[in-house]
Amino acid sequence: MIKTDILIIGAGPTGLFAVFEAGLLKLKCHLIDALPQAGGQCSEIYPKKPIYDIPAYPEILAGDLTDKLMEQCKQFKPGFTMGERAETIEKQEDGSFIVTTNKGTKHQAPVVAIAGGLGSFEPRKPLIPNIASFEDKGVEYFIKDPEVYRDKRVVIAGGGDSALDWSIFLSAIAKSVTLVHRRNEFRGALDSVEKVQELKNQGKITLITPAEVTNVVGHHKVEAVVIAQAKNIEKEFEVECDHFIPLFGLSPKLGPIANWGLEIEKNAIKVNNSLDYQTNIPGIFAIGDVNIYPGKLKLILCGFHEATLMCQAAYQIINPGKRYVLKYTTVSGVDGFDGTRKESPKAVVKAID
Amino acid sequence: MIKTDILIIGAGPTGLFAVFEAGLLKLKCHLIDALPQAGGQCSEIYPKKPIYDIPAYPEILAGDLTDKLMEQCKQFKPGFTMGERAETIEKQEDGSFIVTTNKGTKHQAPVVAIAGGLGSFEPRKPLIPNIASFEDKGVEYFIKDPEVYRDKRVVIAGGGDSALDWSIFLSAIAKSVTLVHRRNEFRGALDSVEKVQELKNQGKITLITPAEVTNVVGHHKVEAVVIAQAKNIEKEFEVECDHFIPLFGLSPKLGPIANWGLEIEKNAIKVNNSLDYQTNIPGIFAIGDVNIYPGKLKLILCGFHEATLMCQAAYQIINPGKRYVLKYTTVSGVDGFDGTRKESPKAVVKAID
Ligand SMILES: Cc1cc2nc3c(=O)[nH]c(=O)nc-3n(C[C@H](O)[C@H](O)[C@H](O)COP(=O)(O)OP(=O)(O)OC[C@H]3O[C@@H](n4cnc5c(N)ncnc54)[C@H](O)[C@@H]3O)c2cc1C
Ligand SMILES: Cc1cc2nc3c(=O)[nH]c(=O)nc-3n(C[C@H](O)[C@H](O)[C@H](O)COP(=O)(O)OP(=O)(O)OC[C@H]3O[C@@H](n4cnc5c(N)ncnc54)[C@H](O)[C@@H]3O)c2cc1C
Repeated sequence: MIKTDILIIGAGPTGLFAVFEAGLLKLKCHLIDALPQAGGQCSEIYPKKPIYDIPAYPEILAGDLTDKLMEQCKQFKPGFTMGERAETIEKQEDGSFIVTTNKGTKHQAPVVAIAGGLGSFEPRKPLIPNIASFEDKGVEYFIKDPEVYRDKRVVIAGGGDSALDWSIFLSAIAKSVTLVHRRNEFRGALDSVEKVQELKNQGKITLITPAEVTNVVGHHKVEAVVIAQAKNIEKEFEVECDHFIPLFGLSPKLGPIANWGLEIEKNAIKVNNSLDYQTNIPGIFAIGDVNIYPGKLKLILCGFHEATLMCQAAYQIINPGKRYVLKYTTVSGVDGFDGTRKESPKAVVKAID
Repeated sequence: MIKTDILIIGAGPTGLFAVFEAGLLKLKCHLIDALPQAGGQCSEIYPKKPIYDIPAYPEILAGDLTDKLMEQCKQFKPGFTMGERAETIEKQEDGSFIVTTNKGTKHQAPVVAIAGGLGSFEPRKPLIPNIASFEDKGVEYFIKDPEVYRDKRVVIAGGGDSALDWSIFLSAIAKSVTLVHRRNEFRGALDSVEKVQELKNQGKITLITPAEVTNVVGHHKVEAVVIAQAKNIEKEFEVECDHFIPLFGLSPKLGPIANWGLEIEKNAIKVNNSLDYQTNIPGIFAIGDVNIYPGKLKLILCGFHEATLMCQAAYQIINPGKRYVLKYTTVSGVDGFDGTRKESPKAVVKAID
């Protein structure tokens, strides 16, 4: 059982900044995210694109924003359960909650903050009848640890940035990389497309287009995929491989959280009109894109504010009756849970003679 | 008469970010501030100190935060009335407001956003009976334009960072600089104290401590100040000068705004429970440190969120009945009023052969 002060579901920008604000109040956080990496939409959908409306950043790449937020909160040593989806919640007699993931990992905390954005990202799966039986046996929908593919034969399907970027990346460590796409045209960053072209010319990536994977073959695990040339659908052939990675994009689904007894409106969780972003279940908060209240804007900067106010209310639940006096970081400094201290250089009092 | 869409009172971080958010909605802003420079508390009180809780900035100097906010909003060409205090407000028949400053400058807008922080910064004045009659005639409480002091004889009073920093700065352009302080000890950044020591040793700053300026002498303008050595109060002497600049710090006062008919609570302006931060007078909003609502935190990041929601409501007032659909800056880009356009590089669709 993983125990913490605030259990945060969703490691997007809102969840990450909540870790920092909680830390200022000496509260510890643990995050659960269905994705293998932190950053939510920013890192999954548009890591290389600039955002222009983060306050005091005239321009910042979404991936860099994630890195900065990770750097800012790391002094408060958050725990992470990544690549797992929060599935069920049970209220305990002592008022705390136990949240269990789809892989059975259990977490307990007196406060739960749902920062689930548009929902947990679920892969779009290809329409291959038997594919489910090969999941985690050679079929993967995202890449958690590239080392898994070292010296392996990999087939990737897809025509967007993920398919391009992972083909490039894995071509350096895998035994072979075959990229299959329904069209001849790829849609992605210019340099990624050009790099794949180059690797193909060098024989480091095998390209099969226009084509589709129509079947997966194997006894206990993936041994080959069946590929049909789009123009010649009756002519199918097999390509031997150890891994088949369809990268057709992820689509967010509110998913299991919708059944937790929370008031839902427009696929979002209703909160108490922005007082402290608490839901209809005391002790459960909803912050960032996942919540709704009159005037709500689904913007990153709003999630930062909501996370901050949520932490104040969490403090009251965790420290009942204790009065918290707001301290400026500039004036009081920041004490990390890792023993670091950040503080402003003090003014000197010094005579001039 | 200066006309604009949103008239912002206060050019602190909240007011500056409001300019940017308004610009995204194609609304123009004009700012009034009692201080000569933008940045509010950040630039007036602690420009050289680090802030640790600006989201995605593990550390940023308050002065640099101001610079970044200015850079972010400059594409929307805000107007500035600086060094003047907003004094009165009158509602017009057409629903707009006219705001007049203490210097008589008039501004008209359909929406007024008060981002006045702790209030307009008013200088702490020395207890010298006739000092008021010399104001703007050689007595100044802050330095708007250092060029005024070129080749002039200047007496500065005070023992903090402002007094130290301006003594250093003006010693390079003024004919003479005399620094008077009640104590031998100065309180400020170490390098400022050391620099003054050095300039004193080089004869570029005359230091008179412990001492006080007790009188200002002159016919139509300052001609000299009377200084009393603290240890020897009966022994007074005159120092001829063109300017006397007491730098005893600024203290914020809600001031004239308190009489505008707005609901005030704890020296702040009540708003409608964070719906859109509108006050009891429709069309007048209060954002940032100046407002109060249940759960309010006087933090910079909260002002950013409040400014953003305020702009949405202002849009409705200025464009009645028009539906605004939130656009992501990443997706839609940003069109400045100065003709600039910022946009994310588009994905290419390209065949690989
Ligand atoms: C193309 C694009 C451009 C954008 N441009 C801008 C912009 O310019 N400015 C701006 O302010 N905003 C922009 N946005 C919106 C911005 O990305 C979101 O507002 C922001 O990501 C919301 O942050 P969040 O932390 O609330 O949620 P998210 O970023 O959505 O993160 C939520 C996380 O929770 C996880 N999760 C959800 N449910 C579960 C569960 N049950 N178990 C485990 N994990 C779960 C998800 O996997 C996800 O990682 C843009 C969005 C897109 C798609
Ligand atoms: C030493 C110190 C350390 C701090 N540290 C932090 C920190 O670490 N993190 C954090 O989030 N916050 C911190 N703060 C608080 C932060 O500075 C404020 O929250 C922030 O400045 C508020 O911004 P604002 O724009 O709302 O108001 P302000 O910055 O106060 O700006 C208001 C402006 O309005 C002007 N004004 C007011 N009335 C009038 C009028 N009638 N006419 C003309 N002009 C007027 C004023 O002159 C002023 O320039 C700190 C504050 C101090 C003093």
